[in-house]
Amino acid sequence: MEHVLELRFALDTFYYLVCGALVMWMAAGFMMLEAGLVRAKNATEILTKNISLFCIAAIMYLLVGYAIMYGGPLLLHGIGQFDLASMLDASSRNGFGGDANYARGADFFFQVMFVATAMSVVSGAVAERMKLWVFLLFAMVMTAVLYPMEGAWTWGGRDVFGLFNLGELGFSDFAGSGVVHLAGATAALAAVLLLGPRRGKYNSDGTINAIPGSNLPLSALGTMVLWLGWFGFNAGSVFKLSDGNSANLVAMAFLNTHMAAVSGGVAALLMSRLLFGKADLTMLLNGVLAGLVVITADAVNPEPALAALYGALGGVLVVLSILGLDRLHIDDPVGAISVHGSCGILGLLLVPWANPDATLVGQLAGIAVIFLWIFLMSLLVWALLGKLMGLRASQEDEYNGLDVPECGMEAYPEFLRVKS
Amino acid sequence: MEHVLELRFALDTFYYLVCGALVMWMAAGFMMLEAGLVRAKNATEILTKNISLFCIAAIMYLLVGYAIMYGGPLLLHGIGQFDLASMLDASSRNGFGGDANYARGADFFFQVMFVATAMSVVSGAVAERMKLWVFLLFAMVMTAVLYPMEGAWTWGGRDVFGLFNLGELGFSDFAGSGVVHLAGATAALAAVLLLGPRRGKYNSDGTINAIPGSNLPLSALGTMVLWLGWFGFNAGSVFKLSDGNSANLVAMAFLNTHMAAVSGGVAALLMSRLLFGKADLTMLLNGVLAGLVVITADAVNPEPALAALYGALGGVLVVLSILGLDRLHIDDPVGAISVHGSCGILGLLLVPWANPDATLVGQLAGIAVIFLWIFLMSLLVWALLGKLMGLRASQEDEYNGLDVPECGMEAYPEFLRVKS
Amino acid sequence: MEHVLELRFALDTFYYLVCGALVMWMAAGFMMLEAGLVRAKNATEILTKNISLFCIAAIMYLLVGYAIMYGGPLLLHGIGQFDLASMLDASSRNGFGGDANYARGADFFFQVMFVATAMSVVSGAVAERMKLWVFLLFAMVMTAVLYPMEGAWTWGGRDVFGLFNLGELGFSDFAGSGVVHLAGATAALAAVLLLGPRRGKYNSDGTINAIPGSNLPLSALGTMVLWLGWFGFNAGSVFKLSDGNSANLVAMAFLNTHMAAVSGGVAALLMSRLLFGKADLTMLLNGVLAGLVVITADAVNPEPALAALYGALGGVLVVLSILGLDRLHIDDPVGAISVHGSCGILGLLLVPWANPDATLVGQLAGIAVIFLWIFLMSLLVWALLGKLMGLRASQEDEYNGLDVPECGMEAYPEFLRVKS
Repeated sequence: MEHVLELRFALDTFYYLVCGALVMWMAAGFMMLEAGLVRAKNATEILTKNISLFCIAAIMYLLVGYAIMYGGPLLLHGIGQFDLASMLDASSRNGFGGDANYARGADFFFQVMFVATAMSVVSGAVAERMKLWVFLLFAMVMTAVLYPMEGAWTWGGRDVFGLFNLGELGFSDFAGSGVVHLAGATAALAAVLLLGPRRGKYNSDGTINAIPGSNLPLSALGTMVLWLGWFGFNAGSVFKLSDGNSANLVAMAFLNTHMAAVSGGVAALLMSRLLFGKADLTMLLNGVLAGLVVITADAVNPEPALAALYGALGGVLVVLSILGLDRLHIDDPVGAISVHGSCGILGLLLVPWANPDATLVGQLAGIAVIFLWIFLMSLLVWALLGKLMGLRASQEDEYNGLDVPECGMEAYPEFLRVKS
Repeated sequence: MEHVLELRFALDTFYYLVCGALVMWMAAGFMMLEAGLVRAKNATEILTKNISLFCIAAIMYLLVGYAIMYGGPLLLHGIGQFDLASMLDASSRNGFGGDANYARGADFFFQVMFVATAMSVVSGAVAERMKLWVFLLFAMVMTAVLYPMEGAWTWGGRDVFGLFNLGELGFSDFAGSGVVHLAGATAALAAVLLLGPRRGKYNSDGTINAIPGSNLPLSALGTMVLWLGWFGFNAGSVFKLSDGNSANLVAMAFLNTHMAAVSGGVAALLMSRLLFGKADLTMLLNGVLAGLVVITADAVNPEPALAALYGALGGVLVVLSILGLDRLHIDDPVGAISVHGSCGILGLLLVPWANPDATLVGQLAGIAVIFLWIFLMSLLVWALLGKLMGLRASQEDEYNGLDVPECGMEAYPEFLRVKS
Repeated sequence: MEHVLELRFALDTFYYLVCGALVMWMAAGFMMLEAGLVRAKNATEILTKNISLFCIAAIMYLLVGYAIMYGGPLLLHGIGQFDLASMLDASSRNGFGGDANYARGADFFFQVMFVATAMSVVSGAVAERMKLWVFLLFAMVMTAVLYPMEGAWTWGGRDVFGLFNLGELGFSDFAGSGVVHLAGATAALAAVLLLGPRRGKYNSDGTINAIPGSNLPLSALGTMVLWLGWFGFNAGSVFKLSDGNSANLVAMAFLNTHMAAVSGGVAALLMSRLLFGKADLTMLLNGVLAGLVVITADAVNPEPALAALYGALGGVLVVLSILGLDRLHIDDPVGAISVHGSCGILGLLLVPWANPDATLVGQLAGIAVIFLWIFLMSLLVWALLGKLMGLRASQEDEYNGLDVPECGMEAYPEFLRVKS
């Protein structure tokens, strides 16, 4: 019997680690998606930014973030100690279908990828004009405090400012349409509002100039990487594999994630055909990502056909949202606010359809809490950083590209380029 | 005891899902391989095509394909329901070494990646000259009906047109050298014959112009992605991990897949050295893929050294096949027909060597059924689509590249390019 | 009870195979890292080199290397046979917490990826000037004999030349900071000393010219791929998952690997800010890799905070080492000797801090044995090859780039480039 309990522990730990590694891979996806959608003169900077924020997120989450969100020992002290007896005891207490049971190191490993994901969302929206080091300072605050606080109120189960409990209101966010994606998009929105659009994006008569991405194969690859990583994002959020019911939920998470992605892609492709008469690749990519964001709020309860419908709604919304924000002159070079914000909200609102434990009131309350907390605090931090250092690169640096002034090197130094 | 059965179920489900996710990754591999081998002016179109077909395949397979191939409920209705009792009962009935036993969602997830793989094979062969939307309409038919029908006759165990049973004839195709790869290559061949070669590929005196790929690092990366994904393709086709014998077979599938790939690569490298005096990168890549396709027909029975020999035969064949098709003026920009077709047939013919249950008659019958069914039906569908919409892009669009007319954007808008 | 033992066997086999597949993925990482850091005119050659060496390594290791390092049947003959009884018997004998127990094919699959990794390290250091076929001949010797010999003395447990035993001296190298990374870097150093720097790298007055990489997004992606693959490299080196303690160690390996990588990155980023006033992307990438190499010597004993400290030391060292080697006019285009050699040594020296079974004497002895064996033998083989064929490409080929003379094709034939 002990052998079986140890096996369960081992299998759940491994499943959770594999899922965490897949989410780590999403960081590479964001990096490539964004590097391909900016102009070549800003590509090195955005690569540097993405890897740096990913590193910083892990350090800040180790230092304080994880403790704020879930409690736990300082710097994970003692995490390496393994006590078979207490593990077995806990297992017995929980019963076979009981609580998740895996190595504590695996939990941090999985969770730390989520805070990095939230921060990665921000990076693309402020591309091509924000100072690198200012962004990295914000990343420290976001991953140490801002994300962990709202994480504590949602997944951590703590009362919001000690006042009310989102879970008791019927808020449910399976893998983080709100906690992760909406949070990242909201911080991005605050930044973009303070930062303003890229020079040359909007004309004085209100018309809009397209600024095409410099390397679309890179962006397409980045999207496929995100897609693959998302299986870990959603399936890992079941937290448990080793009993029949959990294994079934894990399989549903893989399947629904896939069906939402494919129908998000098809919906956005058809939208672009309808609106522009073309098969717009960037809209197709955003449609896939939109489907993924939407299903993240509940990847296990819908049947596959409903998951496909959710994804299609995301694919339609993301195209409209991107066009709408552009009309408002909110300049988001990679569409991150639409993909992760608009579709994050959509995903949360759809949850009660298939999950009887979620309520519309709870979902609205959760959206409000996440949005208001992140938006106001981000605005404050960005404004403070702007006061101290200035948010925006100099006009000259923006014109020449951020790569040389910030990083001292070009992304493609040998390839002759048209001025852009 | 119930705990152990649930653990088995969970482990088999997880193994199967991980393999499915690896096969999903192959879609990214095809996309990059092809995008790097075409000219820059057609790269956006081929990215769009690959992601779109991948999305469409999943939707059509959900709607009808899976039901045709394996039966099952409409739209997977009820798939999320998990009944522990019936699962345990089935397990008891099957005994420990009995039939595969995993979540039903995992089965669809794995199988849907295979239909997409078959379709991905087609995409490269018709590159740089076929209309995008025509291709996507064909993808709908191929993934809804054409592939599922021959899948039903092979892996589904159904009689071919109610006349004879391939399995009873001794046909064996472990992971799809024929069912997936030959099928895709055959549909591609039908298209290429109707479509004709790219303008400028063959001269009126019969000589051949090389049209080099625009981004070889992308193609090399795509090949490595396919290689990694192929471990899931072959190892997942054991369908079961949780007993000693199955685990051993899964390990053999990983190992043999690797050995066939490496010796396919080395053989093609040596062939290119012999024939051209150079270490031809594209032949090396095709050699690796050739080895992978060959071993796919039987990844578990050969010893590793025999798997290496199989792979080497594939590496030699693929070079000869590519040169031969070019002489016949069958223009396949990425070598897909040779890699997946010629080597798919080779793989099937080699099966009886190590697998005593397979017969040469069975293999020949299977090859004939797959080829004839897919070739004739594809020819019909392509011809119909050609009648209705025309298969081929206009001369002007082909000359300027398909990216702007089909997708409204260039893949590398900033990089100055030589006219090609 | 038999069911449980079979389940353990299956789970350990699968875990080990998944880790092996992740290490395979590192080959793609090396390829992209290097292809992005060389000039475009040498990119095809380095892609060809990386895939070829990866193929050759597997064949040589199958032929002789694995047998030298660990013993075992010729060509793995009989590896496919599975004997349940002997497996169960071994399990009973070992007891639940006993020796690792997995399919024999999985062991070769995992180990063969390590020999390829060692060889991949060499490839970047000799880039842009060594003849391709000479390199591939060296790869045959390195992977057949040189690496397997030092592998036998360290992980194989055999006495060094029958004289003394490194394990008994207290040498410990968890996943190969020395056995794999230092070994590769040492072979690279021997080559670079004989080969000399690239033309134009160092001026006659001793000053240094920067030769920027041609495609930094590719290098950044390669680094992320290496990072992901490294989880398998380190976690697979636990060799066992299926009991509580092993599962905990596997989780620690994932977690510590991650923390060392992120702090290596941050440390190198800060160093580059301090020294150059810029956020140097290539240093950031090297910092991440440095952290990964350092923690590889002991990924399970340190607590996460100590792992982060180890990584940070690596990040500082790698920057200093790269600058130092450049001052000595040792031209290593990708920094491989610093990342894998200097940081490999650092990692080994740090082991006794957290692992009481390791001794400083043992570590020094291990470093000396690995370095001397690989350095002297490599020097001999490189010199011999130089005598027979010449190591270095002609002045003209180096000037024009190796792509066309060696591989007959350019990596980016359409993109106009500045002369470099």
